[in-house]
Amino acid sequence: VDEFELIRRYFLRAGGNGADAGVEIGIGDDGAVLAPTPGLHQVQVIDTLVEGVHFPAHLDPSDIGFRALAVNLSDIAAMGAVPRWMTLALSMPHADEEWLEAFAGGLFTAAGEFGVALVGGDTTRSPVLVVSVHISGEVEPGSALRRDGAQPGDTIFVTGTVGDAAAGLAGLVGGSPVRDLVRRFTRPAARVRYGRALVGHATAAIDVSDGLFGDLAKLLTASGQGAELSIDRLPLSPALIANFGMDECRRFALSGGDDYELCFTSAGQPPDAGIVPVTAIGRVTSGSGIVCYDGDTVVPYADEGYLHFREERD
Amino acid sequence: VDEFELIRRYFLRAGGNGADAGVEIGIGDDGAVLAPTPGLHQVQVIDTLVEGVHFPAHLDPSDIGFRALAVNLSDIAAMGAVPRWMTLALSMPHADEEWLEAFAGGLFTAAGEFGVALVGGDTTRSPVLVVSVHISGEVEPGSALRRDGAQPGDTIFVTGTVGDAAAGLAGLVGGSPVRDLVRRFTRPAARVRYGRALVGHATAAIDVSDGLFGDLAKLLTASGQGAELSIDRLPLSPALIANFGMDECRRFALSGGDDYELCFTSAGQPPDAGIVPVTAIGRVTSGSGIVCYDGDTVVPYADEGYLHFREERD
Repeated sequence: VDEFELIRRYFLRAGGNGADAGVEIGIGDDGAVLAPTPGLHQVQVIDTLVEGVHFPAHLDPSDIGFRALAVNLSDIAAMGAVPRWMTLALSMPHADEEWLEAFAGGLFTAAGEFGVALVGGDTTRSPVLVVSVHISGEVEPGSALRRDGAQPGDTIFVTGTVGDAAAGLAGLVGGSPVRDLVRRFTRPAARVRYGRALVGHATAAIDVSDGLFGDLAKLLTASGQGAELSIDRLPLSPALIANFGMDECRRFALSGGDDYELCFTSAGQPPDAGIVPVTAIGRVTSGSGIVCYDGDTVVPYADEGYLHFREERD
Repeated sequence: VDEFELIRRYFLRAGGNGADAGVEIGIGDDGAVLAPTPGLHQVQVIDTLVEGVHFPAHLDPSDIGFRALAVNLSDIAAMGAVPRWMTLALSMPHADEEWLEAFAGGLFTAAGEFGVALVGGDTTRSPVLVVSVHISGEVEPGSALRRDGAQPGDTIFVTGTVGDAAAGLAGLVGGSPVRDLVRRFTRPAARVRYGRALVGHATAAIDVSDGLFGDLAKLLTASGQGAELSIDRLPLSPALIANFGMDECRRFALSGGDDYELCFTSAGQPPDAGIVPVTAIGRVTSGSGIVCYDGDTVVPYADEGYLHFREERD
């Protein structure tokens, strides 16, 4: 089976070849031809997952497929855009049909859930599994959520619960997986609908991929502000609390990464669209840096979240 | 140095952060925000280069950077579009600053030559170097060059010369590199300007990436036609002829790949925009398959060009 046959068989699925909205030419030519919606701007994101780096080797391929799309959808959500089209760059050691079928299953599950059409891709051999997904979304001009708009006095919010995915991954790797936590890692829920609801409400937004503490720090740096963060208000799931001590829960929540929740700032109340719970966790301050509070007590915390290439720096 | 610092240092270069036409938000947020040109359609392509698969290990990083963009620009050319924006997914074992600087140098050389702005990316650790580039271009509605429009009686043309890159690579790997040939491999000239000139003239087009014979076969399959191919008319460079016997020259030309010339069909004469030499090499026929001729003599030829995963099929 050559790569072209692989692409045809697994990715030339229903809707992948011109049947989707705005797709003039889909998979099968030198490039895809798309019809952008007149009057809208386009949001583009690209994210890569490497086996053994971003997920454990031998993770269920349908989870890999789902997750590869979800982490990109999360970036689209953080921009307040509507996801439309994706391209896939898939590099892998072997052309394993069973693996590909499961991977495509997970990918198309996420694609179907969020209305994203696969319009093109490239499948190549590589010694290690590397999956890059590019998504194009659309947003009204001037409406995209940015990182750099937070103002002193704004409240800091986060959607859902944080720490679950990292705790789930730790359990998975350590041989004591907790089902509800593992699922937060394997099947992250991109907050696309809530991101749309934030347009016009949030002053700044970022998705929590590397850890809440580090990602909030990026938002604040971009905005030129600091923050007070109440770690006693971090939204923790019952499954997390049931399986870990409070210190460990907070560490997962602050630095664990892979949550794919939205962290955002707003001068008023957050929109309650009945989509996902939202928790106020702090306040933007003038200056720089994040000061953590447990109630009224300042708690030193310096973890910057997961960084690639970190070992070379330390 | 963490990945974010790497991205900032090497890829947040001049024009990469909102200074370019149509870039509302560039590198540094969760996604890029672009302003598509009203009334145009968008062409999207993605292509991956893997070290040791698509190029030899330890190739000059500036050549890798140039080539990663050029192979994608070639797909844009084959669609008749104008390249506009790119995103980069870079996975590598080590965060080597010297390597990155050279790679970025080659990438931005190609980007500058073709007016492409880097608008986003993702840099991650991986056991092997994998470079995926996504380019968005623009084209007038209904004008994109397709693979499926060739008609019986159309003449088959190819730009430039074919076989050089494969011969150059063979010399490079085999320890007897010929400078002019190697350069065709390391610095492919994407035929973007000629692709634009073909809009309204070509009935079908494809770029020659896997080998002229195999890529022409793909065009013909998409069009539901066959062809007569005159292998004695293949455009061969003086450097190729000077270094190889005629049989080997023709094998490189037909099956070598990596040429990144355009192969196209037309009912009339090709546009001569003074951009690149163009050679008539055959004729589209009804039916299927390619019959090769050397003068009036039929020559059996069955190579399908370079295919990934081929060993598993054979």
